[in-house]
Amino acid sequence: MENFVYYNPVKLHFGKDAIRKLGQAAQSLGKKALLLYGKGSIKSNGIYDQVTDQFRQANITWVEYAGIRPNPAIEDVVAAARLGREENVDFIIAVGGGSVIDSAKFISIAIPYDGSAWNLVKGTARPESNIPLIAVLTLAATGTEMNKFAVVQNNATSEKLGFGNDLIYPRYSFLDPQYTLSVPKNYTSYGIVDLIAHCLEAYFGKGEATLSDKFVYSIIREAMEFGPALLNDLGNYELRAKIMYAATNALNNLLFYGRESGDWGVHTIGHVFSVLYDVPHGASLSIAYPAWLKLMKDRIPERIEELGKHLFNTSSANDTIAEMESLFGVLGSPVRLNDIGITVHQKNKIIQTMIENKVGGAHHKLSEHDYEELIDLCLQ
Amino acid sequence: MENFVYYNPVKLHFGKDAIRKLGQAAQSLGKKALLLYGKGSIKSNGIYDQVTDQFRQANITWVEYAGIRPNPAIEDVVAAARLGREENVDFIIAVGGGSVIDSAKFISIAIPYDGSAWNLVKGTARPESNIPLIAVLTLAATGTEMNKFAVVQNNATSEKLGFGNDLIYPRYSFLDPQYTLSVPKNYTSYGIVDLIAHCLEAYFGKGEATLSDKFVYSIIREAMEFGPALLNDLGNYELRAKIMYAATNALNNLLFYGRESGDWGVHTIGHVFSVLYDVPHGASLSIAYPAWLKLMKDRIPERIEELGKHLFNTSSANDTIAEMESLFGVLGSPVRLNDIGITVHQKNKIIQTMIENKVGGAHHKLSEHDYEELIDLCLQ
Repeated sequence: MENFVYYNPVKLHFGKDAIRKLGQAAQSLGKKALLLYGKGSIKSNGIYDQVTDQFRQANITWVEYAGIRPNPAIEDVVAAARLGREENVDFIIAVGGGSVIDSAKFISIAIPYDGSAWNLVKGTARPESNIPLIAVLTLAATGTEMNKFAVVQNNATSEKLGFGNDLIYPRYSFLDPQYTLSVPKNYTSYGIVDLIAHCLEAYFGKGEATLSDKFVYSIIREAMEFGPALLNDLGNYELRAKIMYAATNALNNLLFYGRESGDWGVHTIGHVFSVLYDVPHGASLSIAYPAWLKLMKDRIPERIEELGKHLFNTSSANDTIAEMESLFGVLGSPVRLNDIGITVHQKNKIIQTMIENKVGGAHHKLSEHDYEELIDLCLQ
Repeated sequence: MENFVYYNPVKLHFGKDAIRKLGQAAQSLGKKALLLYGKGSIKSNGIYDQVTDQFRQANITWVEYAGIRPNPAIEDVVAAARLGREENVDFIIAVGGGSVIDSAKFISIAIPYDGSAWNLVKGTARPESNIPLIAVLTLAATGTEMNKFAVVQNNATSEKLGFGNDLIYPRYSFLDPQYTLSVPKNYTSYGIVDLIAHCLEAYFGKGEATLSDKFVYSIIREAMEFGPALLNDLGNYELRAKIMYAATNALNNLLFYGRESGDWGVHTIGHVFSVLYDVPHGASLSIAYPAWLKLMKDRIPERIEELGKHLFNTSSANDTIAEMESLFGVLGSPVRLNDIGITVHQKNKIIQTMIENKVGGAHHKLSEHDYEELIDLCLQ
């Protein structure tokens, strides 16, 4: 087991009508908020009213920045940070899924930073302070509500980059599974795939951590037991709650303690599909993971076998991979590029972008030769 | 799943030589410490020197209170709080196992409190402020290093009471498995039993929480896989680390999220054995748990069966209980009162104390008739 620091300062309110605690939490952070959301579904489903009612009751004023896109873009970060700076807000409240909350994380460090926000993402400048952040989650998937990570893309340069810093932990997160009841079937699928992929990125990381491995199995098994049931019963609160809580635990660092690092190679592959073709994040992962496992089959057979033994009661790497691919299929997520209309004609462009993005994991490095084999496996 | 708040502010430094971060952490809390420890083994094994070296390097002065007893007593809390108040300390550092750290938690709220500290324990007065606390753990068992609970006993009244409050979370905890290498075999056993018992108190609590159940199985399985190996290889760092980390997770609230409550009935039985006969906490639990499970066999058979299915691959409540008792035996902990020299002659006194202490759980209430059956089962 590696040395580690176990620490997570997020105060997470989980459950039915959790939002009722928002006003009090917001008051502890100041009097004026920057309210951030996506394309406006929070207005039709009533969440906007619940949030702003809490603000009114707590005498909190706010300015709004709406229209954050799925696969969040640096342009929105820059524009919203400018607004927050001009309006001198005390804190940020992000209402939405991973893209809104990830954008808000960057905005929270971009507001007090003088230079170009992209410098912070690229790591050519280090953030030194932040505006506190409240997250109100409406989609179970990324786990961003309880971690210090964020991903953003630069459409001008076809880069999608991850970033981690203690300054971007949300101060409070509100998770009401009711808010996810209206998430359509496909995005529900992608969210479940995403949480499974986070478990796998931990599992295939560097360093032996037996209890963290057992937690990996626990969360994936939870997704296996209740994910397919949820997809047949999208309005079921209890199933929504189970998946929402599983997604949070898949990336609140619980699965990483005692390891030197996670891998994240498959995420870097998925990011290339997303930045080139706007593929939803979860869909990119259900395509990339089976291919990556096939590539790794002869390199780390025991590790793949061990996973299958615990999840599927299988005894070979081949069977493990077949079961994992079948699970993604049962969850209704694509498992080949062809499933989403990307064909062999795009292969060279994809590989070129993989090279530019230096695709590969922290533990399992990938070569350019691997890229070609991977994309062939994603197409077959 | 019940509503809950997921929150744990402890910053826990885990691993080899973690103590090197102590000086910096201490500086963030002030300049003068109350150093608390037990009967002085930290002086012979070098931990005292490592802690005080850190203080010297960080220009921190300290006063000491030594001699905290196993099964911590309110008298020490009162005396140490008086010392801390007179010396005007900025923070407390507790170096030891559960008894030292639990005492420190009470001292941290007793220092700024004017009345009798026992009022705080009994709940007849509420703490309003605290002195911050650093824990340096030397025994893997109670999980107190990462939670807001503490237990203390009053030998004058034969009461042993638990207490929980946000004010008593340690600010920092330091867990170096090297510090546990010299723990003797019997206390290593009791620690493993204790962590398993914490998992069971969560599991037999109120409310369905499927992921938390899976985490319960994970931690008990970790103890089953590596506990017996450790008892045959007490100087093995990696095994010490696994058990230490398992013990922390067994009571840092992870197993309780989504439940209405844990049960804790078996702990209240064990506390009676400890307060009457100074039985080590873990030993009291390995005696009380099999008896409690036998009492519950016809009341909650499915729940007991479910546990056995996941841990032992058994299919009946009877087999589950037999396996659990056998596990405690393999771990070298007593499973009957007679094993520790307590006989039927003490039965009436034990039952009388159970009545006075209102023994029973939050979920599964126990009657006085149950007490007699339980003690018979502990004796048989």
